[in-house]
Amino acid sequence: MNAENFAAGERRVSPAYVRQGSEARRAHEHLIRLLLEQGKCPEDGWDESTVELFLHELAIMDSNNFLGNCGVGEREGRVASALVARRHYRFIHGIGRSGDISAVQPKAAGSSLLNKITNSLVLDIIKLAGVHSVANCFVVPMATGMSLTLCFLTLRHKRPKAKYIIWPRIDQKSCFKSMITAGFEPVVIENILEGDELRTDLKAVEAKVQELGPEHILCVHSTTSCFAPRVPDRLEELAVICANYDIPHVVNNAYGVQSSKCMHLIQQGSRVGRIDAFVQSVDKNFMVPVGGAIIAGFNDAFIQEISKMYPGRASASPSLDVLITLLSLGSNGYKTLLKERKEMFSYLSTQLKKLAEAYNERLLQTPHNPISLAMTLKTLDEHHDKAVTQLGSMLFTRQVSGARAVPLGSVQTMSGHTFQGFMSHVDNYPCAYLNAAAAIGMKSQDVDLFIKRLGKCLNALRKGQSKVSGVSGIDSCDKAEDIDEMALKLDSVLCDMDQHTSS
Amino acid sequence: MNAENFAAGERRVSPAYVRQGSEARRAHEHLIRLLLEQGKCPEDGWDESTVELFLHELAIMDSNNFLGNCGVGEREGRVASALVARRHYRFIHGIGRSGDISAVQPKAAGSSLLNKITNSLVLDIIKLAGVHSVANCFVVPMATGMSLTLCFLTLRHKRPKAKYIIWPRIDQKSCFKSMITAGFEPVVIENILEGDELRTDLKAVEAKVQELGPEHILCVHSTTSCFAPRVPDRLEELAVICANYDIPHVVNNAYGVQSSKCMHLIQQGSRVGRIDAFVQSVDKNFMVPVGGAIIAGFNDAFIQEISKMYPGRASASPSLDVLITLLSLGSNGYKTLLKERKEMFSYLSTQLKKLAEAYNERLLQTPHNPISLAMTLKTLDEHHDKAVTQLGSMLFTRQVSGARAVPLGSVQTMSGHTFQGFMSHVDNYPCAYLNAAAAIGMKSQDVDLFIKRLGKCLNALRKGQSKVSGVSGIDSCDKAEDIDEMALKLDSVLCDMDQHTSS
Amino acid sequence: MNAENFAAGERRVSPAYVRQGSEARRAHEHLIRLLLEQGKCPEDGWDESTVELFLHELAIMDSNNFLGNCGVGEREGRVASALVARRHYRFIHGIGRSGDISAVQPKAAGSSLLNKITNSLVLDIIKLAGVHSVANCFVVPMATGMSLTLCFLTLRHKRPKAKYIIWPRIDQKSCFKSMITAGFEPVVIENILEGDELRTDLKAVEAKVQELGPEHILCVHSTTSCFAPRVPDRLEELAVICANYDIPHVVNNAYGVQSSKCMHLIQQGSRVGRIDAFVQSVDKNFMVPVGGAIIAGFNDAFIQEISKMYPGRASASPSLDVLITLLSLGSNGYKTLLKERKEMFSYLSTQLKKLAEAYNERLLQTPHNPISLAMTLKTLDEHHDKAVTQLGSMLFTRQVSGARAVPLGSVQTMSGHTFQGFMSHVDNYPCAYLNAAAAIGMKSQDVDLFIKRLGKCLNALRKGQSKVSGVSGIDSCDKAEDIDEMALKLDSVLCDMDQHTSS
Amino acid sequence: MNAENFAAGERRVSPAYVRQGSEARRAHEHLIRLLLEQGKCPEDGWDESTVELFLHELAIMDSNNFLGNCGVGEREGRVASALVARRHYRFIHGIGRSGDISAVQPKAAGSSLLNKITNSLVLDIIKLAGVHSVANCFVVPMATGMSLTLCFLTLRHKRPKAKYIIWPRIDQKSCFKSMITAGFEPVVIENILEGDELRTDLKAVEAKVQELGPEHILCVHSTTSCFAPRVPDRLEELAVICANYDIPHVVNNAYGVQSSKCMHLIQQGSRVGRIDAFVQSVDKNFMVPVGGAIIAGFNDAFIQEISKMYPGRASASPSLDVLITLLSLGSNGYKTLLKERKEMFSYLSTQLKKLAEAYNERLLQTPHNPISLAMTLKTLDEHHDKAVTQLGSMLFTRQVSGARAVPLGSVQTMSGHTFQGFMSHVDNYPCAYLNAAAAIGMKSQDVDLFIKRLGKCLNALRKGQSKVSGVSGIDSCDKAEDIDEMALKLDSVLCDMDQHTSS
Repeated sequence: MNAENFAAGERRVSPAYVRQGSEARRAHEHLIRLLLEQGKCPEDGWDESTVELFLHELAIMDSNNFLGNCGVGEREGRVASALVARRHYRFIHGIGRSGDISAVQPKAAGSSLLNKITNSLVLDIIKLAGVHSVANCFVVPMATGMSLTLCFLTLRHKRPKAKYIIWPRIDQKSCFKSMITAGFEPVVIENILEGDELRTDLKAVEAKVQELGPEHILCVHSTTSCFAPRVPDRLEELAVICANYDIPHVVNNAYGVQSSKCMHLIQQGSRVGRIDAFVQSVDKNFMVPVGGAIIAGFNDAFIQEISKMYPGRASASPSLDVLITLLSLGSNGYKTLLKERKEMFSYLSTQLKKLAEAYNERLLQTPHNPISLAMTLKTLDEHHDKAVTQLGSMLFTRQVSGARAVPLGSVQTMSGHTFQGFMSHVDNYPCAYLNAAAAIGMKSQDVDLFIKRLGKCLNALRKGQSKVSGVSGIDSCDKAEDIDEMALKLDSVLCDMDQHTSS
Repeated sequence: MNAENFAAGERRVSPAYVRQGSEARRAHEHLIRLLLEQGKCPEDGWDESTVELFLHELAIMDSNNFLGNCGVGEREGRVASALVARRHYRFIHGIGRSGDISAVQPKAAGSSLLNKITNSLVLDIIKLAGVHSVANCFVVPMATGMSLTLCFLTLRHKRPKAKYIIWPRIDQKSCFKSMITAGFEPVVIENILEGDELRTDLKAVEAKVQELGPEHILCVHSTTSCFAPRVPDRLEELAVICANYDIPHVVNNAYGVQSSKCMHLIQQGSRVGRIDAFVQSVDKNFMVPVGGAIIAGFNDAFIQEISKMYPGRASASPSLDVLITLLSLGSNGYKTLLKERKEMFSYLSTQLKKLAEAYNERLLQTPHNPISLAMTLKTLDEHHDKAVTQLGSMLFTRQVSGARAVPLGSVQTMSGHTFQGFMSHVDNYPCAYLNAAAAIGMKSQDVDLFIKRLGKCLNALRKGQSKVSGVSGIDSCDKAEDIDEMALKLDSVLCDMDQHTSS
Repeated sequence: MNAENFAAGERRVSPAYVRQGSEARRAHEHLIRLLLEQGKCPEDGWDESTVELFLHELAIMDSNNFLGNCGVGEREGRVASALVARRHYRFIHGIGRSGDISAVQPKAAGSSLLNKITNSLVLDIIKLAGVHSVANCFVVPMATGMSLTLCFLTLRHKRPKAKYIIWPRIDQKSCFKSMITAGFEPVVIENILEGDELRTDLKAVEAKVQELGPEHILCVHSTTSCFAPRVPDRLEELAVICANYDIPHVVNNAYGVQSSKCMHLIQQGSRVGRIDAFVQSVDKNFMVPVGGAIIAGFNDAFIQEISKMYPGRASASPSLDVLITLLSLGSNGYKTLLKERKEMFSYLSTQLKKLAEAYNERLLQTPHNPISLAMTLKTLDEHHDKAVTQLGSMLFTRQVSGARAVPLGSVQTMSGHTFQGFMSHVDNYPCAYLNAAAAIGMKSQDVDLFIKRLGKCLNALRKGQSKVSGVSGIDSCDKAEDIDEMALKLDSVLCDMDQHTSS
Repeated sequence: MNAENFAAGERRVSPAYVRQGSEARRAHEHLIRLLLEQGKCPEDGWDESTVELFLHELAIMDSNNFLGNCGVGEREGRVASALVARRHYRFIHGIGRSGDISAVQPKAAGSSLLNKITNSLVLDIIKLAGVHSVANCFVVPMATGMSLTLCFLTLRHKRPKAKYIIWPRIDQKSCFKSMITAGFEPVVIENILEGDELRTDLKAVEAKVQELGPEHILCVHSTTSCFAPRVPDRLEELAVICANYDIPHVVNNAYGVQSSKCMHLIQQGSRVGRIDAFVQSVDKNFMVPVGGAIIAGFNDAFIQEISKMYPGRASASPSLDVLITLLSLGSNGYKTLLKERKEMFSYLSTQLKKLAEAYNERLLQTPHNPISLAMTLKTLDEHHDKAVTQLGSMLFTRQVSGARAVPLGSVQTMSGHTFQGFMSHVDNYPCAYLNAAAAIGMKSQDVDLFIKRLGKCLNALRKGQSKVSGVSGIDSCDKAEDIDEMALKLDSVLCDMDQHTSS
């Protein structure tokens, strides 16, 4: 309401009260003004009321919400379903223009502001999370993998002779596909076993660069966040190689924003060497639905080039989710989540270690991996041929999600490349193991239930009970137990075991 | 509620009434069962209550909504903001798996079902709209342009020697960019003027094919829906050329699902020749927010190949919007929208013709274009140098969206290609003109306001009043007039005129 | 957003577009200003976006939504559940103060405005609906019956000797209870049969007034809207009697706002005689959830007195529903609903007449009742003892709601009064009958389904099939038929027949 | 979804995953079944997903949501606005029937269940909160005051000779009005000063009973929760008097459910003497919007009688709010709130004591009041005539809500009764004072801000600065300070001081 409206209101109820209401409105407006002026994540999270007021204000700046608009184009932001309009807060025009996903739309000033502000907040958070010298970034409504593809496609125009991408192996399909889809040949660099850890083979990278010739190499494609016992790539050294040979360097930082270690690696890499872009998922780092990624980098112009490669307008939905989330959390709220994650990692580590030892297994020593842990399944594997995949299935049916039971000897072929020991990032890891991760938002209850259910599954497997329909000795006193009973029913229908454990 | 719950309810209120309630529930379940079994768009739209019940039921099948779930992975569908969870109906895991956007997710049976059902409904609607022999399709959360890029990237693997894409010219940036981004060189085929219409130069296409050699051509990239005076490409003949030379054929059918003519062209093309994929926007055809496209084709295996090229999980948001919309409309509702659009096209055509004649202009004769119309701006252009772009700005500030004022002689350079007469699809169209389109969801009120405001603008321009701050003779009686007043204020701040008129 | 915020926005996206957005905002604000200044129902309904913006603006004027508020009272508008806060648009403080339901709350300027505006809009609609000289009204979150009680309790203080309320009989429990609850003795005036109609016995009323003495009579309590064959009371003549004997007159106009005839009676009554207050339901007249009533009258001071009788703050929920509904409909939308209702009444009348004649029954001639109709069930009643109540049950199980099958000879005792022929408004109506009404919001589909199902039920009853489990000859082609099948299952469980038919 | 639907789903996505989804559904259903069977508040709160599933399930049992319903009655649950339908979860028919607010509606099995379950949960919570022997209760959508009126109106029918209600004075308008509205004469029993506390004068009560004669007394109307220095009435002794003289006893327990002391008094009163009904607000005890009360008692039949006095159907809105809230909190969540309130009371007490002493005032000793505190304003009052009311205004404009500054010597006349020293519950309390309360949901931040702002106001008043437009020495570093600045602007427009401080 503007001044005239408040004045009209004063004639209906006591002026003093209306004036107090109008002053209260200014407090909301003040927060909005700070946001628009500074483009930074507010320290304290906003309450829902301010968030929704802000979104409402932005939405009425879009032409589809103009009261007197008449549309004679082919895309007028008309919506058939009120449910749909509502869930998007009436932002219908998406973000970007045909030539540039970061461009401003004449028809949609509100959506354009939303897009600019979101990117600005995310930049702020990336700095806060450790990459202080980041220059620009944008949210793109595509998976991390597809966003990597977009980076590679952008680089193609700069390096017409390039055919290869140097890629320290990580056994995650979409990483590999991101290069295939872009039309390049991945050059797989096998990892080196150092203690229990799998680490980047720097010598092999450099040798490959020399062998193929830098101008035939599109870029080095490295990875931070990954499943143990693989650990983040040696980014600093890779960045130096890239700088030395004048090769672009793209980092897959999928769920690394949540880890100060991953962010530190990127910051250091860019300081001592070369990193052109780093790409991260919005869902894995900001607790929003799957669907977006952030492409960030240290050279403003290059990031803009990438944003100009996206042909057409794009969904505003991931940007909207990130905006709502960051405004609601505030930077303090986000910092708290980061801190709690670290504590959970430490708690999970302790508990898993205890359990492993109780079952004559051990927690792999992977100090460089700040998120994922692995516990050996050696005795289990020796006990029975299929016991490892069976454990994966059992955990799945017991509503443990995200645990990966990694057997020895899986083979996977993708686009003509065959990976021995697939899932374990190396041809022959010494033993089968089980992964668990402490990701942002995890609660101690997740850890406790996991440890409890894992223990039960291990017991059952030892006794050969996993497919038995009735298990004696199960006391039906808590939820976890109810789930056990359900799980036993389900075990028998699960056939295609190895599918449930890969992410 | 299941039978036990109803029984418990009967002990609290009269059994007869509870039983009636339980029977009523069956009616909703019945609709859901038909949908799941048949995978077809229901004839009559569902009411909100059934739609939301269905979504709720699906959502609780996803692991993030399991009451006893414990998550130890890196992506557990955790959501920080309740506002965000709510607006996505608690579908957090997106669609697809790392290797395939159409694949089923173990963690998210509900989201997977949502995805399958949506694709199935869309297939049904494409058939209903005229492409009866379509074999498969899927919704992808990317712009039409980026989706075309994905098709081109998929074809690359099948045609390693190909470097060119044959492209009958259409002046829309994202069409052009879709090829550049994919790393191919567009071979622009200029259009031929036939009467007022701009049509495909088939001879030039065939000549170019022979000149470059079919194996060096990735595909022909043709277009259906476009701005008049360009008309849909001669798809049948292009499809025959493609068949003869064994060249793939990808059709940009951006907003063509709403037109039986466009759909008929595709159906015929595939019957007599070759069409590998046709791509359309979800927002432009189904009245949902910007953000998704449908990739469809006549060969099931090829469409699956494309879906396997998307690396990573993707946003479920566009699929969810389409699902809600189609369930709410039903096929009858959608047919009604198609019918009304046709009527609006006819109405807009009549009204624009009248107005044109009143101003000594004429409606261009473009009978092959079923959606877009163009009226000459010859006298205006002669009257004053910048009058045409000025008209565009004036319409914009008067809240007419989507009208394009196309001046003579615009030049645009993109990725090294220079387009003379940009926006008009040809180097030298005989005259400046104004576009207006009758797209799905248009109301007669849109037409009436447009005609009224356009008339006023033309009057003002003739009198040289567009920048005058006070206009005499404006009666302040209706909304349109209020907007006039606003517009006059805005006119003075608009500098960068040509931007507002391009879409 | 205020001017500063827009200025900040202009620095992020193009100033011209932001300015257009800001102008667009003014259009919403303009509507809000008109509403606040004039307090009238807008002619054209507002779109959801404006309605929600307005509610949001009001809500942030309440202290529970102040960003810096600290509460140290016993009622601070705190809400435990976000779902609850959201569904009330964060209006938590209700309406009124301890002493007066129309008073302004210091803590809640927004809720107070909401209350004032709603009452003002409702007053406007009452005038529009026909009671042009109404002076004041307010929405009270109580049933019509309880609101009548409140009127009677207010009158008590003005008429200390009064013990009786003169009440032309209407067989609706809450009407009767409203007097009992207030602590008065209803003096039932039996209706007179005129043709098929049951009408007010004016002579009996006047005789009773003289017999009891005017000072012992609290008021005359008359009724407009009622089930045929009863018709609205002779308000004009009753109002004259009340004026002559100086007796207050309270009209139960429960669902009469939707009928110009009922409203005309009230307007005329007040013109020629005396009407102190008339009470109507919000749900029955404005298509909102059950829960509120409007107390209106011709003497501002008296209506204020009633509002001061409600001890304590009250739910804002019914007022909020009415406000949203009236703003969404606009006065034009409401007029359209009134017009459609009249047409439906006429359609229902025609169809029911045809059906009645086909079954050797007839439509009762009740021209003075503008909403409710009655069709005789004479042959049915003669056919079988319990057939009439059975018909009621059958219609209920076939999802016909609101039809009342009225048998002869029901007896009901309430608070010591025994009513012969209960439900029929008279001791001995000549025949059993079935009621159906055409209320606001009815669709022709309601009429068609009703006629179809009623026909089937009558057929079944004639053939004695109502309890048969399988009915041959039912073609399962439409929804109505599915419901038939369900209904047959239910029939057998329904025992307590007469309950389903009374409203 | 039922078994058939899941089976259909299994044919679309992997059976194992669908089956897991179906098992997960059972977990929600299980919670619902326990609720329906036991009618108790679940220990652990439900998540939003289960709450909304349950509401959705109930709603589709109401006839307005039947897919095949046809309505021919005068009240069919039609809703004009989708916003309105949605915010009520499509419960439109309200609760109760014309004769009884607790009765089951044939048209609305879902709403009826909602009503029954809510009342059952509330009964459970009342027991948990300390009144173990409560027999029955129901939520009524009226203010506490109006609900007391309903109790009195019910008693009238049992005590035809009664004209008086014995009422130990409490200065809260709606308490007094509840008796006036019901048509009875309140007999005010002045409180006795014991130390700082104002307590029930039992002798005066008994003397009055004897003087007026028990049969002329409708009931004793006592109060638990109240502003200090008044303390809860001596319920046990009053209950014994009532039992001895066979007089009904109605307790106003407005915000007493949150206090174990108040609840204990009621429990004890009923054990040793007579309590017929006790009435409490839903908003003040359960953190829901204003609008409902709970009428509870120890005799099932009497509570049913009261529920049968409400003429007509009633709003389901307060019941729905309570249901959502209790299911979301669970009994553990509610217990936690009770515990936190106690801690806040202690914290507020400590802080206020400190502040009082710093300003040469003192905290009144009122150990029997478990919720409200009072601090003297003696020196302030002596300092300046209007300083006390001015303090009230200043706190109001500084967004301190709920604090009451009580001056000496206010006089208030209501319905012919004059109260000396109004607001202080006694004719001549020794000094002016300020009230603050620790109510359910209070946070330590509320206390801190209150103490801070109160200190500033006291300082300003001493210096005579309250109306000065610029205050030196205010550091503008925190929110509280911003509010200070706003407040100074507002101070000048506030004239009608005493209104802001009364609740």
